[in-house]
Amino acid sequence: MHDDERVLAANAKFYSAFAAKDADAMAAVWARRAPVACIHPGWTPLRGRDAVLASWRSILSGPGAPPITCADAVAHVLGDTAFVLCIERIPAVELIATNVFIREDGEWKLVHHHASGMAREASEPEPDEEEPDSGSGTLH
Amino acid sequence: MHDDERVLAANAKFYSAFAAKDADAMAAVWARRAPVACIHPGWTPLRGRDAVLASWRSILSGPGAPPITCADAVAHVLGDTAFVLCIERIPAVELIATNVFIREDGEWKLVHHHASGMAREASEPEPDEEEPDSGSGTLH
Repeated sequence: MHDDERVLAANAKFYSAFAAKDADAMAAVWARRAPVACIHPGWTPLRGRDAVLASWRSILSGPGAPPITCADAVAHVLGDTAFVLCIERIPAVELIATNVFIREDGEWKLVHHHASGMAREASEPEPDEEEPDSGSGTLH
Repeated sequence: MHDDERVLAANAKFYSAFAAKDADAMAAVWARRAPVACIHPGWTPLRGRDAVLASWRSILSGPGAPPITCADAVAHVLGDTAFVLCIERIPAVELIATNVFIREDGEWKLVHHHASGMAREASEPEPDEEEPDSGSGTLH
């Protein structure tokens, strides 16, 4: 198995844990020694394994935890680090995610997750300026 | 200078090029050999140096290119790769960015930029579900 396949398998484990609302499986996905971080859609960054895993326990145990699937995952391997870009599909919305992995004890582990809203058009229009996708109406 | 300082200096160069609308300086920030990617706020991912730099030329030459400053940058160095989380301030909105760097020919170069909308509250509320910051009203 090539590294990009291993990275994509680790990425798939993350979404399996998410979809199954399995907090233990989610904890196993994240790196144990490397410093981790997480940006949930619209939120300020969380840093450190304790804060990140606490946020996931809250998400996975909440009544609003959405069903989620991952699509179009592409891995970019950079030696012992890699990042994956993929689409997250939950009902009525698509998100885009950057997931950064590191090889820790021979296994690819997640060190950073950044998910955010995405236009639903299938095409890739040229952006003409760096602007937010909408402001964050639900949060203001 | 430690690696985290070097990475933060590379991150600062990215925002200097952005603020100065300097397409040549922007091109110099990005890796030449490693595969690059970019997620502008709300857009689908762009992959490959040509597509990414074309998007930046379009952004930097457009009449709507916003003044931008970077704040609260924190570097996470993972050997020869690193990622930076920082806040992007443009008028009336704050974005959050993940910037991934690789050491290429002894210099830290950008391989991935992911920017998205962020709540403007200074606190870090606990997210209770993985939901988008808003839907993407300007794009639908």
